[in-house]
Amino acid sequence: MNILVINAGSSSLKYQLFHIENDTVLAKGRVERIGMETAILVHEPKDKPEVHEVSEILEHTTAIRKVLALLVHPEHGVLASTAEIHAVGHRVVHGGESFKSSVLVNHEVKQEIKRLFDLAPLHNPAHMLGISAVEANMPDVPQAVVFDTAFHQTMPAQAYLYPVPMALYRKHKVRRYGFHGTSHNYVSDRAAAFLGRPLEQLKLITCHIGNGASCAAIEGGKSVDTSMGMTPLEGLMMGTRSGDLDPAIVPYAMGKEDLTIGEISSMLNKHSGLQAISGLSSDMREITEAMEAGDKNAKLAFEMYEYRLRKYIGAYAAAMNGVDAIVFTAGVGENSEALRKRVCEHLTYLGVEFDDAANRTGRGLERRISTVNSKVQVLVIPTNEEWVIARDTYDLVQSTTH
Amino acid sequence: MNILVINAGSSSLKYQLFHIENDTVLAKGRVERIGMETAILVHEPKDKPEVHEVSEILEHTTAIRKVLALLVHPEHGVLASTAEIHAVGHRVVHGGESFKSSVLVNHEVKQEIKRLFDLAPLHNPAHMLGISAVEANMPDVPQAVVFDTAFHQTMPAQAYLYPVPMALYRKHKVRRYGFHGTSHNYVSDRAAAFLGRPLEQLKLITCHIGNGASCAAIEGGKSVDTSMGMTPLEGLMMGTRSGDLDPAIVPYAMGKEDLTIGEISSMLNKHSGLQAISGLSSDMREITEAMEAGDKNAKLAFEMYEYRLRKYIGAYAAAMNGVDAIVFTAGVGENSEALRKRVCEHLTYLGVEFDDAANRTGRGLERRISTVNSKVQVLVIPTNEEWVIARDTYDLVQSTTH
Repeated sequence: MNILVINAGSSSLKYQLFHIENDTVLAKGRVERIGMETAILVHEPKDKPEVHEVSEILEHTTAIRKVLALLVHPEHGVLASTAEIHAVGHRVVHGGESFKSSVLVNHEVKQEIKRLFDLAPLHNPAHMLGISAVEANMPDVPQAVVFDTAFHQTMPAQAYLYPVPMALYRKHKVRRYGFHGTSHNYVSDRAAAFLGRPLEQLKLITCHIGNGASCAAIEGGKSVDTSMGMTPLEGLMMGTRSGDLDPAIVPYAMGKEDLTIGEISSMLNKHSGLQAISGLSSDMREITEAMEAGDKNAKLAFEMYEYRLRKYIGAYAAAMNGVDAIVFTAGVGENSEALRKRVCEHLTYLGVEFDDAANRTGRGLERRISTVNSKVQVLVIPTNEEWVIARDTYDLVQSTTH
Repeated sequence: MNILVINAGSSSLKYQLFHIENDTVLAKGRVERIGMETAILVHEPKDKPEVHEVSEILEHTTAIRKVLALLVHPEHGVLASTAEIHAVGHRVVHGGESFKSSVLVNHEVKQEIKRLFDLAPLHNPAHMLGISAVEANMPDVPQAVVFDTAFHQTMPAQAYLYPVPMALYRKHKVRRYGFHGTSHNYVSDRAAAFLGRPLEQLKLITCHIGNGASCAAIEGGKSVDTSMGMTPLEGLMMGTRSGDLDPAIVPYAMGKEDLTIGEISSMLNKHSGLQAISGLSSDMREITEAMEAGDKNAKLAFEMYEYRLRKYIGAYAAAMNGVDAIVFTAGVGENSEALRKRVCEHLTYLGVEFDDAANRTGRGLERRISTVNSKVQVLVIPTNEEWVIARDTYDLVQSTTH
């Protein structure tokens, strides 16, 4: 079965075409600058040369049509016909409290995703564009939606409620949802397999550290807490997002700088984090290079970033009364040796025995970076959210056709 | 030497008169409803009956005059003359970055406290009223100011900076200051004495849990992190304060409920915390009683409160790469057996061996509530901020007169 996985943004669209039984990616690519005359389409078919196109793509339906044309193109394609695409799976950022797992798309599901626009105004409308665009091009193909929030719906009330008037929860859905659930779910499964231990018996702390970043406390395979909150702003310091703050800073800064609600949100989401402290970059690679070259602000940004991550690991060890393994994943988590080293060397109190040689080798592979006998195991597990979306979509389609 | 300690609020004033060499409190009391025709003065002289007066007290100078009159009153007094008051020490909430320790009051100090009004608009102006009122009544008596923030000025930049544009720090002093410093300082000193170990070698986590609440990580006697931030809103869940939130909730709630900056601040400071979740009370005693009687909302409020405290303890263990002792203090910390029990029973991963019998006895005394051999010691230390203010004032006066 071939599954097309779509991650639609407001002006972009990423795709991967999986052959499930063979566990292979037949093609992947992306469309950028949708809405412009000079939109870019990059198509990477398996075992064939990459294709770059610049053309007018004014909306998502056209983008999908062009992607489908390339997938069945005589020269650049990987399929004989679009009929060989058996299902489509979409990443959807916000599933609110309605969606505790992935589901097949139907009228009610679409209505509910629309009702959640308010909670994810930048993301959910774009995902709906992707769903409609597929529908317009392939009306008979089943579609599934896989939510970033769903995995965290197992959190207990003590973790998901905020200590604010309950009317905000009841009327406006203010609670912790958490994000990156697909990734936390995937790497916790893989970690259990790597350790050769049943997931049900493990206390894991998974650190998805990319440009966005979150930690999760996963007990017996279930998310019991996570650092992102109602929105992806809470928690860890990120590339351009602040993460945790004294909430009083928000009205204080609004008053001092005469900022609107939109402006303060933009400041905290787009102009904070590593970027704000380093004054250089939101990219951990550049921060690390600058730090190693002696840049003081880059060093401070790195130290704050690491310190705030380490405190979350400590907090989640307390949340679960212990931890069996800590897992690093995503862009920074998989690639920043310096970050992992500094975190782990300050966790000897937990029983972490760091293996610096292992930390510096095996990039791209699932691996252990603690000693084998370390009381708390530390792993690096490359994440693969697209694969989870494809697998969930496959499972949903299978379960309805059998 | 006799030292009068003053804690002035906007419409209240608390006092204690210490005889330093004898380590005794000669009298204490409070004035409430300053500004009204029916202000209340309660005076408790040592070994004499309490005095209650209701009278018109329109401002702080009058309040101080009435307090001094009672201190030298033939029947209710404890001194022959106000000349026997050798110095006055004031609690001041916010010392910003200017004050790293207690200081004697002079013109420059008063100017600087005024410059900090912006950071503590509810507190610092009231403290200035107290200082001026003493000056008006006893122009020749030396006065000292003891800051809630000063003890935390040892925090490193990685702990005190927020990952927001640095202009907010440079222009508007946005950073973590921390509060309850006098208490964290006092109980860490006492904890070292109790354990019979040099403070310089200890990693302590002090939990000042009252109606306001904060944790501090204290390494070698120096505060390296604390949960309150630029304001006392950040950190732990409190009686009526939210503590930590997704910062995005602030603009979201403002937009949804059309709240002003003042209204959202009021909601988070006065109508959140235990009060909001329980719908019952901001008082941990009432919450615990209701929980034990089966109230579900009270139970949830208790669980959130405990869980958020426990996560901070875990975070600070990671911040210091270990912890030697955890100290509970202040109203809730000293008195809530249920809270301490639930926290400690979930910290066995750190090596905490809880002693439930010890937890239930010795109220009011400095004591250990872990086993003697527990890897991490757990102590209850009653706090005494007024005594620290008196001692600091004494030390400052001594150092200038010798």
